[in-house]
Amino acid sequence: MHIVLLSGGSGKRLWPLSNDSRSKQFLRVLPIDGGTNESMLQRVWGQLKKVGLDENVYIATRESQKEIIYNQLGDVPLILEPERRDTFPAITLAVSYLKTIVDAKADEVVCFIPVDAFVEEHFYRILSSLDEVLTQSKAQFALVGIEPTYPSEKFGYIVPKKSQQTGEYIWAKQFVEKPDRGKAEELIEQNAYWNGGVFASTMGNLEHIFTSLGISLVYDDLLRGYQTLKKISFDYEVIEKSERVVFIPYKGKWKDLGTWNTLSEEMGKSIYGNGILSENTSNSHIINELKLPVVVIGLSDIIVAVSSDGILVSKKCESHQVKDVMIDGTLPQMYEEREWGWTRVLDYSMKENPHWSITQKIGIFAEKLVRFKIEKEYSKSWTVISGEGRLNLRGKPIHLSPGITLTISKGIDHVLLANTEIELIEILLK
Amino acid sequence: MHIVLLSGGSGKRLWPLSNDSRSKQFLRVLPIDGGTNESMLQRVWGQLKKVGLDENVYIATRESQKEIIYNQLGDVPLILEPERRDTFPAITLAVSYLKTIVDAKADEVVCFIPVDAFVEEHFYRILSSLDEVLTQSKAQFALVGIEPTYPSEKFGYIVPKKSQQTGEYIWAKQFVEKPDRGKAEELIEQNAYWNGGVFASTMGNLEHIFTSLGISLVYDDLLRGYQTLKKISFDYEVIEKSERVVFIPYKGKWKDLGTWNTLSEEMGKSIYGNGILSENTSNSHIINELKLPVVVIGLSDIIVAVSSDGILVSKKCESHQVKDVMIDGTLPQMYEEREWGWTRVLDYSMKENPHWSITQKIGIFAEKLVRFKIEKEYSKSWTVISGEGRLNLRGKPIHLSPGITLTISKGIDHVLLANTEIELIEILLK
Repeated sequence: MHIVLLSGGSGKRLWPLSNDSRSKQFLRVLPIDGGTNESMLQRVWGQLKKVGLDENVYIATRESQKEIIYNQLGDVPLILEPERRDTFPAITLAVSYLKTIVDAKADEVVCFIPVDAFVEEHFYRILSSLDEVLTQSKAQFALVGIEPTYPSEKFGYIVPKKSQQTGEYIWAKQFVEKPDRGKAEELIEQNAYWNGGVFASTMGNLEHIFTSLGISLVYDDLLRGYQTLKKISFDYEVIEKSERVVFIPYKGKWKDLGTWNTLSEEMGKSIYGNGILSENTSNSHIINELKLPVVVIGLSDIIVAVSSDGILVSKKCESHQVKDVMIDGTLPQMYEEREWGWTRVLDYSMKENPHWSITQKIGIFAEKLVRFKIEKEYSKSWTVISGEGRLNLRGKPIHLSPGITLTISKGIDHVLLANTEIELIEILLK
Repeated sequence: MHIVLLSGGSGKRLWPLSNDSRSKQFLRVLPIDGGTNESMLQRVWGQLKKVGLDENVYIATRESQKEIIYNQLGDVPLILEPERRDTFPAITLAVSYLKTIVDAKADEVVCFIPVDAFVEEHFYRILSSLDEVLTQSKAQFALVGIEPTYPSEKFGYIVPKKSQQTGEYIWAKQFVEKPDRGKAEELIEQNAYWNGGVFASTMGNLEHIFTSLGISLVYDDLLRGYQTLKKISFDYEVIEKSERVVFIPYKGKWKDLGTWNTLSEEMGKSIYGNGILSENTSNSHIINELKLPVVVIGLSDIIVAVSSDGILVSKKCESHQVKDVMIDGTLPQMYEEREWGWTRVLDYSMKENPHWSITQKIGIFAEKLVRFKIEKEYSKSWTVISGEGRLNLRGKPIHLSPGITLTISKGIDHVLLANTEIELIEILLK
């Protein structure tokens, strides 16, 4: 079975820790043994590994997330979308990749999984049986249905056919998206399940569907014509129109950690980073990525999230509003995880300023070779704070060690090889 | 009349904007015409000027506040205390300064004013009459009594003698410090006033008091023996023991802007700096000295204060607790106003780190000459971001302009003359 992890999402609702290149699935705030933390992506990857499903896994994502995925998982196969569209285009591209590049055959099964559901390990054990369920049932699609715990108005529901469960799976009769509360209560009485967003199908079935929609699965063609694909969810466009859908029920924890409210419930402690909660606070969380201390006094049920991108102070239950308050693209991204390390902006002047400048701290992992972008408009000064390495400046080697300060003029090629982990301060000037 | 402004206070309750070198009286958050802001110190100075009392004004303060006072008021006469003690030592030193350095005569009047009371202009007009009131009444001390507006438990009260007001002043019978609520109500029924912390006396009377306490008023001796002076308030130690005290009543605004709760009431707007309050907030304030944006969602009656020293998020009425939560001296001071400009720490590593470093931005006002401290343990790298000037590096002149990067080794003398305003990034390394 091929597995495709769908890593989309902009994570605007988890601002300021998430941004365009660091969506919610990349935030390292979930506790693991030994006092450290992992991201949703790392958690899902680890869960797949534990149930033996970590071979033939691909991550469908976009260019802007490539480096952070390498940073967190190492070298994993990526299916790179040219731009952010919905799940229908993403899945079309993934299927064509499997057909054209991986050479997957018509009888092979492929399973798509969203990367941002917080579930227990046995959720992934269920995935292993989707393959067999497809064969047994001869269904087009096999899904996972989540046993509802309350009449949510935010999820999609799968209504079962009257016939009871036969063995492991249930036939789906109908799909209902985001019902109002009354309708949701009705659906639960009819034994409806939440749609977990996971589905499996055979390559043959998927090819047949795309062909009938007039879409050619030649990978290079799709890449080029990606922006012409319909911006819609695959569920709406395909699965919900299918007559032959089954699902396996799952009972257990299943949460969307997409807002600070839900995410904070799964954090192992109330303070991440430098922070103090006064004694007269309760159910409040501090997530602080900066060095400066955060002090919270006399406030309950709040979240304070701090990164180089900004500071959010919100009543937990209202934290989803951050996506409306923040205007997209108006704010610079101050922290980026790169394949070879990270960068953090310390200071900057406005673009309008004739003496435009950026001061940033750069961390480079040991043994990484970094080919820096040649800056045509800016010169740089570097001061090494820690670590050792070698810089090739227009072919000339320079040994880097703490205290070395140097200038890199506009248009100069520079490649760095880190012997140990290196930290340096870079000042970019017009 | 000589006037001494008492500029003490650590302003711990206004953390993170105030710190040891920037007490509450230096925060520029009070609105003035033209959309800009001034500090308490600047406001008091301006009020004294308006009523014509700005000649013969001295500021009693300590070394650590010297540069910020010059930064805010220019070149004013300072009486520098060798260390922070209470008002009794501070006033003793000021009186000896007036006697020894200024050569004030026994019949001259001196008036002491705390710098942190937020009052209306006519408060300062009252001060002009303290001189005459002393002469008329033959009292030892003439004070200002504030007409109470509620039975506060936090202030000191002056109880008047039964005899009614004779002309401008009233004789004091007794002083009561911080009564409980019931007692405060009783005091108000007896026509007691709040003690405004202002007092005037003649040099002769003050000299007589210090002599009777066995204290010599030779300035240099006092400076040397400053740490042996009793750490107590002058009110307790002297005024409240005196039999002959009068006061002039003042009716009008009189506030201690010592907590975020009281200070925010006098701010002209709810957002200072880069910030957004969502629509479902009310009576909340953002004071943000950093560039990173602050977003507040769904919270009312809170204060969010942000500086390079830290981030405070507090229920307004609980904000006084910040002084208990913050442990003195554990946190580095990240922003300092200097006589010649300012410094702001952007990044630092811990002292324990073998590659200890500080990255800071430095601003130097136009035409200032700065003799930098010779660093024995650290080397520096400088990159000029904007402005022009001349650096003398061990006697050798270097022209500074945007983009210039240079290294200053340990132990090297360096003096900078700014032609225009200069901004530079400095990296200090062990």
